Amino acid sequence: MIVVMNHGADKKDVEAVVERLEKTGFQIHLSAGVERTIIGAIGDKTRIGDLALEAMPGVEKVVPILMPFKLASRNFQEQNTVIRVGNIEIGGDAIQVMAGPCAVESKEQLLEAALRVKEAGATILRGGAFKPRTSPYSFQGLEEKGLEMLAEAREATGLYIVTEVMDPRTLPLVAQYTDIIQIGTRNMQNFFLLKEVATAGKPVLLKRGLSATIEEWLMAAEYIISGGNSQVILCERGIRTFETYTRNSLDLTSVPILKHLSHLPVIVDPSHAIGKWRYVQPMARASIAAGADGLIIEVHPRPSEALCDGPQSLTPENFKILMDEVRQVSRLMNRKMDDVS
Amino acid sequence: MIVVMNHGADKKDVEAVVERLEKTGFQIHLSAGVERTIIGAIGDKTRIGDLALEAMPGVEKVVPILMPFKLASRNFQEQNTVIRVGNIEIGGDAIQVMAGPCAVESKEQLLEAALRVKEAGATILRGGAFKPRTSPYSFQGLEEKGLEMLAEAREATGLYIVTEVMDPRTLPLVAQYTDIIQIGTRNMQNFFLLKEVATAGKPVLLKRGLSATIEEWLMAAEYIISGGNSQVILCERGIRTFETYTRNSLDLTSVPILKHLSHLPVIVDPSHAIGKWRYVQPMARASIAAGADGLIIEVHPRPSEALCDGPQSLTPENFKILMDEVRQVSRLMNRKMDDVS
Amino acid sequence: MIVVMNHGADKKDVEAVVERLEKTGFQIHLSAGVERTIIGAIGDKTRIGDLALEAMPGVEKVVPILMPFKLASRNFQEQNTVIRVGNIEIGGDAIQVMAGPCAVESKEQLLEAALRVKEAGATILRGGAFKPRTSPYSFQGLEEKGLEMLAEAREATGLYIVTEVMDPRTLPLVAQYTDIIQIGTRNMQNFFLLKEVATAGKPVLLKRGLSATIEEWLMAAEYIISGGNSQVILCERGIRTFETYTRNSLDLTSVPILKHLSHLPVIVDPSHAIGKWRYVQPMARASIAAGADGLIIEVHPRPSEALCDGPQSLTPENFKILMDEVRQVSRLMNRKMDDVS
Amino acid sequence: MIVVMNHGADKKDVEAVVERLEKTGFQIHLSAGVERTIIGAIGDKTRIGDLALEAMPGVEKVVPILMPFKLASRNFQEQNTVIRVGNIEIGGDAIQVMAGPCAVESKEQLLEAALRVKEAGATILRGGAFKPRTSPYSFQGLEEKGLEMLAEAREATGLYIVTEVMDPRTLPLVAQYTDIIQIGTRNMQNFFLLKEVATAGKPVLLKRGLSATIEEWLMAAEYIISGGNSQVILCERGIRTFETYTRNSLDLTSVPILKHLSHLPVIVDPSHAIGKWRYVQPMARASIAAGADGLIIEVHPRPSEALCDGPQSLTPENFKILMDEVRQVSRLMNRKMDDVS
Repeated sequence: MIVVMNHGADKKDVEAVVERLEKTGFQIHLSAGVERTIIGAIGDKTRIGDLALEAMPGVEKVVPILMPFKLASRNFQEQNTVIRVGNIEIGGDAIQVMAGPCAVESKEQLLEAALRVKEAGATILRGGAFKPRTSPYSFQGLEEKGLEMLAEAREATGLYIVTEVMDPRTLPLVAQYTDIIQIGTRNMQNFFLLKEVATAGKPVLLKRGLSATIEEWLMAAEYIISGGNSQVILCERGIRTFETYTRNSLDLTSVPILKHLSHLPVIVDPSHAIGKWRYVQPMARASIAAGADGLIIEVHPRPSEALCDGPQSLTPENFKILMDEVRQVSRLMNRKMDDVS
Repeated sequence: MIVVMNHGADKKDVEAVVERLEKTGFQIHLSAGVERTIIGAIGDKTRIGDLALEAMPGVEKVVPILMPFKLASRNFQEQNTVIRVGNIEIGGDAIQVMAGPCAVESKEQLLEAALRVKEAGATILRGGAFKPRTSPYSFQGLEEKGLEMLAEAREATGLYIVTEVMDPRTLPLVAQYTDIIQIGTRNMQNFFLLKEVATAGKPVLLKRGLSATIEEWLMAAEYIISGGNSQVILCERGIRTFETYTRNSLDLTSVPILKHLSHLPVIVDPSHAIGKWRYVQPMARASIAAGADGLIIEVHPRPSEALCDGPQSLTPENFKILMDEVRQVSRLMNRKMDDVS
Repeated sequence: MIVVMNHGADKKDVEAVVERLEKTGFQIHLSAGVERTIIGAIGDKTRIGDLALEAMPGVEKVVPILMPFKLASRNFQEQNTVIRVGNIEIGGDAIQVMAGPCAVESKEQLLEAALRVKEAGATILRGGAFKPRTSPYSFQGLEEKGLEMLAEAREATGLYIVTEVMDPRTLPLVAQYTDIIQIGTRNMQNFFLLKEVATAGKPVLLKRGLSATIEEWLMAAEYIISGGNSQVILCERGIRTFETYTRNSLDLTSVPILKHLSHLPVIVDPSHAIGKWRYVQPMARASIAAGADGLIIEVHPRPSEALCDGPQSLTPENFKILMDEVRQVSRLMNRKMDDVS
Repeated sequence: MIVVMNHGADKKDVEAVVERLEKTGFQIHLSAGVERTIIGAIGDKTRIGDLALEAMPGVEKVVPILMPFKLASRNFQEQNTVIRVGNIEIGGDAIQVMAGPCAVESKEQLLEAALRVKEAGATILRGGAFKPRTSPYSFQGLEEKGLEMLAEAREATGLYIVTEVMDPRTLPLVAQYTDIIQIGTRNMQNFFLLKEVATAGKPVLLKRGLSATIEEWLMAAEYIISGGNSQVILCERGIRTFETYTRNSLDLTSVPILKHLSHLPVIVDPSHAIGKWRYVQPMARASIAAGADGLIIEVHPRPSEALCDGPQSLTPENFKILMDEVRQVSRLMNRKMDDVS
């Protein structure tokens, strides 16, 4: 970290900063220039947040040099984290595709979706039992009944399950049914929920917050890992920008960046990012070409009857085309595609 | 709501849309143009979300005409909501200022802050006992001990208390101590928490989400009101933009917009929006001139020793200057300033 | 277009709107609901902008149904625009890659870059002779000398040339040297410059404005086409968002969207969008997988000595790797890669 | 400036950076830590841009310490720049209000607007003769005829004139008629135009670019000042964000920031930022309370007949109310309001 003192800072101000840094265990390098003094401090970057240096007299600016996450960084762990779910691996040699409806609506709908996405090559079934909805008047999910239906679909198809938890109180319930616990975009900085899933003993799919920087996202992962659960999958799902033609803007460059900065697996959700099914297919191809470890795609047997997010859901037929293309790009990237059967 | 059919839509497509709308109770106006058919639908706007019309064959675009909130809207309730806390009113004739440290750190710190902000004219004491922090390694708050200290400071000064709740499990605890329950920016769309505070029987200070539109913000208020609690105070606290000089961008225009669209009181938090104490004072003046019903300001006896958000905290001396200026602008706006003593 | 009248609008207000619309040649469909009247208007969408309907008494909202561009739209022209430059085609069967240094610095630098990018398979040489720089103290380009060097490099290598014009006064000069005229991101809405390049008789590479919506971008293309030049190539180069790790956020979804809405060729500039060479390669692959017709890539013989944008420039060695990968993805997309030799 | 070398950087890399910095005249402070070396460099900040340090081997990050503008900064000139136009001053003791229609449409419209805004207390008449329009099919302005009408209105009323220049070729023409030359938001980084107005010998009203940071905006001012014209007025007019209820988001905090960082006068344009006349009045009050030196407001005799921006134009009656309120806030801020009569 660099502390830049302002023009008028006097010796006493500099000494106070140095003292506070040294007391916290930082090693100091002082550069007293003609115009201003600059203090370099080397030490435990995770402690910078509590130092309040910018509020000290004479301090103009504090410039962190290193990103503040540690356990999530590739510096800390060189080799990729590979997460095993049953007999498949996420972040390993194979590309994994999670697919299914936005919300679990009924046994029939879910089972039909599950069979169709499995047939096309998906290995994990997605489906919301608890749904975060902007309007209190919208369908909020089938809750425990939805979880039961997911478990039945797993039984019937062999697909693994990913579903969202929104409330720490229902975490034990959700964890009991699902294979992967999803933290949704609105809860990326729900820190109590993060601390809780850290103890749930199941892999966590951590979606990027709607307006989260990559650094904040990795700090959210750090909450989970430092809480005891290193099985974190990062999921790019678009960020909020001024563009209104798409629901959000898919920030696909985050994929190679995360692979560089972190050892965690990265998947992409083009359905929620874009909000229009027509563009999901090309962006699925692009995601794998950018280096993603997998995809999560909304598929509904009859999108026009979906209780949630119909406009961005693919029909099973279009999903099959997507999978055929994804398979080709995966091969180009020297990645396999697993099969649950 | 307007449903625009696309160029190639045939009669059957139009009929399917009309049927679904009529079944849900909408009244239909059909405009069959040369190029395309347009369907106007009048009915319960709160039910639009579940219709999934955009996924139906032949539908190009669905254009909502009315904003989707109802109970929060001024159409629903003409006169301002005035919220009574003890012997003061928020949203009434008087401007109310909430002030205090970012986090409760100790009895001494809190009491000193409380006495100084009261002296300057604040009526409500702010202070976090549970703190949402980007880093898991940062100070996370004193939790219940912090709540006790807030209650003691209330006892000692007569100030009312506002403090944040982050987890539905601690809501009963927080509600037992505080006069106003704060929902922070990261939890504006934590829908389970919103449903829970709706039943807590205390006024709720609902901060705008970091990247929430005004419409989404009012929908979050709608969750609380429709859940049974109409005592909602809206708090503008800046939105995330590309500008990096400030922590966030204070979107002050939201104040007159909210006063036009809604009957709820609106206050402004310039401290968190800006992140630099130097600019808090002018923006406090501007907030009142824009029509806000109050302010929430970070004040710390010694900002450079604050465990949280020191750089944006005012000293008690600078807070006094701010209050003198705010008092003058309030007079200009024909607003009083209450006093708890 | 739909005009929504507000709650209190009376018959006179409605008639005034209808009269103005009919006078401008619009055909009217009136829906008088219980709560409010809705006016549908079908006619020349390019004339909506001048109607000022939203300022008329009783009007609540004007909702355009169709995007306001016409000549640039795929509705207007079904088949792809293919632009011929010498013996290559942009937007046709083949992927074209433009490459070279940010700025022309010297004969030697440019020629070395040109030879190396040609060797790797580029068909067009990029290089700035006039440079838009944030700081007045930064290198501003070699101007006409730079143009001469570009022409010499073309002579020596057979590569075609693309270079930026920033000022209508230098357009004749630039047009005399270059094969493709580039309009930079800061000039996407420099309407006088757009009108001028419309008459220059050369293909135009139109970069997306830093904060331009897709609609505004296509309207800028409409300026050029309606001015007489239909040879427009669209270039996605990132948009400004809150993320600071990258220079801008590459909005790759714009590629399939533009291919759907418009008949114009679309290329991608990952170098400027990202600002860090390390991530250019994966995003080049992703661009082609998303359906782009080509790329523009910054390559410098010695990036660390570049007078401009060194950190995002590839070495010739890394560019060769990029081209090998792009070639593979192109094959997958059933696209050829031309060769100028 | 601080140069942070990466983990693996060796001695040779560090020496190369030091050598390049010293050759450019920077003074060096070296901090060789255990983990990484940090190089502090003090010297001419305006030369950093051309050093390309981030592309040198072993360099991880370059952190500028000082903002890169110089002539525009308050460090360079302590006292406020006061710009004299005829017998009024901008940036001095008095608040100045510029008002008038978006576009000059006819002699009658302009004269009526001029008389009404003067009556209410405006001192400067705004009106566009050259109009930047998103659509090529929209009204583009009366051009020289519009300039003549502005001059006639000045003659008739004594108001000074501000109007926009969009093209360096028409600058001599515009400069001949107007008192203040406006650079619009889309041209804030049209560097050739900036260089040209630097030589025009008239004050320049420099609007903030739609997605310009405060730093980039001051760098644009630096272009004009370093080109020989220090008469620059900065105009906040909103930035592009995700919020769609307003046209743009008025970033009012820029006002006290600019007053702190720079000596240049700052005015606010709430009309263009917001796009809805209803909210212009409260935000005009807020602007003055935030410390602005003036306002620019759109006023049209009959907004519903305006050829441009009717929805955001005030009627003369509402403008009078706005001026009465602004006068009161100005008094509170110890600012006078001039009068041209």
